[in-house]
Amino acid sequence: MKIISFTHNGTARWGLLQPDGIAPMDHLAPTVKSAVEAGLIASLPSDTKATLKPDEIALTLPLPDPGKIICVGVNFPDRNAEYKDGVEAPPNMSLFPRFPQSFTAHDQPLIRPPESEKLDYEGEIAIVIGTGGRRIAEADAWSHVAAATLCNEGTIRDWVRHAKFNVTQGKNWDRSGAMGPYLTPITSADQLADIRLTTHVNGELRQDDSTSRMLFPIPRQIAYISTFTTLHPGDIIVTGTPTGAGARFDPPRYLEPGDVIKVTAEGLGTLRNTVEDE
Amino acid sequence: MKIISFTHNGTARWGLLQPDGIAPMDHLAPTVKSAVEAGLIASLPSDTKATLKPDEIALTLPLPDPGKIICVGVNFPDRNAEYKDGVEAPPNMSLFPRFPQSFTAHDQPLIRPPESEKLDYEGEIAIVIGTGGRRIAEADAWSHVAAATLCNEGTIRDWVRHAKFNVTQGKNWDRSGAMGPYLTPITSADQLADIRLTTHVNGELRQDDSTSRMLFPIPRQIAYISTFTTLHPGDIIVTGTPTGAGARFDPPRYLEPGDVIKVTAEGLGTLRNTVEDE
Repeated sequence: MKIISFTHNGTARWGLLQPDGIAPMDHLAPTVKSAVEAGLIASLPSDTKATLKPDEIALTLPLPDPGKIICVGVNFPDRNAEYKDGVEAPPNMSLFPRFPQSFTAHDQPLIRPPESEKLDYEGEIAIVIGTGGRRIAEADAWSHVAAATLCNEGTIRDWVRHAKFNVTQGKNWDRSGAMGPYLTPITSADQLADIRLTTHVNGELRQDDSTSRMLFPIPRQIAYISTFTTLHPGDIIVTGTPTGAGARFDPPRYLEPGDVIKVTAEGLGTLRNTVEDE
Repeated sequence: MKIISFTHNGTARWGLLQPDGIAPMDHLAPTVKSAVEAGLIASLPSDTKATLKPDEIALTLPLPDPGKIICVGVNFPDRNAEYKDGVEAPPNMSLFPRFPQSFTAHDQPLIRPPESEKLDYEGEIAIVIGTGGRRIAEADAWSHVAAATLCNEGTIRDWVRHAKFNVTQGKNWDRSGAMGPYLTPITSADQLADIRLTTHVNGELRQDDSTSRMLFPIPRQIAYISTFTTLHPGDIIVTGTPTGAGARFDPPRYLEPGDVIKVTAEGLGTLRNTVEDE
């Protein structure tokens, strides 16, 4: 089941992406988020016939009005070394929030701003919280996940290091990242616990790893994050990127206008974006 | 003019805190945020008579549904030294987001969680964006500020250093900080550019400085932040704390249940909170 959000004749809607087009679902709940809150995501009528054609709609972010977006950093082997700061990998996961406006939709361009030429890609898997909670046990964590999608956690590399103790700036440029193309309902850990995640730039494989190699697996992320902040339905966790970002190369290989980046994971489709100068 | 948000008979409302009680304003706009968006904040009918008594209402956060909340770190003289990490003060301001749920209202207790005894105070001034924009010039910045209030940017100190490159965890414990008691409309830089900001714990003066000594003054904050992220009406910038947090002392003087913390600034009133164990 592929759940999309889109605009149709200027109106924000959502529905299912079917083989023959789009089957709107907004008669069941006004938005995807409200459907997540109502626990409807896994039981949508998947055989509904399409009534809209693909060229009648424009995709938006799969969850256009998310709650908190919390990203996990340094979460695959060798990622710590890519920071080249001589500091050992920490015992806990690094976390940073991103604002929704830092992401654009599938098939839209990532925006390279005039202030920097160091726009970099990071292919990741994003999960959407379905059932909220505080201090969620690792053993229960999967039952709190409603859906997953792909994320290009695009980063302005030099602005990540602007200041003393955070990455806020480099991670929050408007439309520097992307999410999509659709939400896949998650009803079993097997869907995400050991799947391949790749990033291609202009057809060249740059990132290639399995979620089974995460230093902090998804259940641990949910347990740790919910220790300090109550998770709510519609919150998003972006679960970390494999080694191989452009900053890793010597010299670095940052994104340039016209580049095509594809983030792919088994069962979640492919998130495709181009790059444009602002 | 003192603009408050509150609940009355279980309904979320807003209005003016007058000498004789509360004058509701929700007939003008459904929420403070919508009033900010409509540009009404500075021109509310300040002579409206009160129709509710103080004991009929319960204060909530002054802006219960803010947009982004971006906090500025290491922004007063000597603050960098308090981190005791041997790293020089950076050329740019440190920034980190907080989620609204990490703040409680005036007169409510800050919550010390069972996971840490290192709950610390940080008295600050928070500004509310009235007119949005991107790449706002410093010279124009004050015209983008709609209002200001006080913030106790409460922090779980040991969780600030859990991971590699951020402070997300230690800054986002549920109800570990506070904002309030009310919004003051800002129509002139003179209201904030050189005012005294103090924090008292159990009557003892702990923080005492002037906004004129900020390393990164408010107009520079607005200019820098809006370089990478478009500011929208209702976004909040928490502008930094003077030296003197509990972590500064040797041994550190963290907050304990029953403590009373008061953050005061000229023209913005006093934000008062107690501490409770969860």
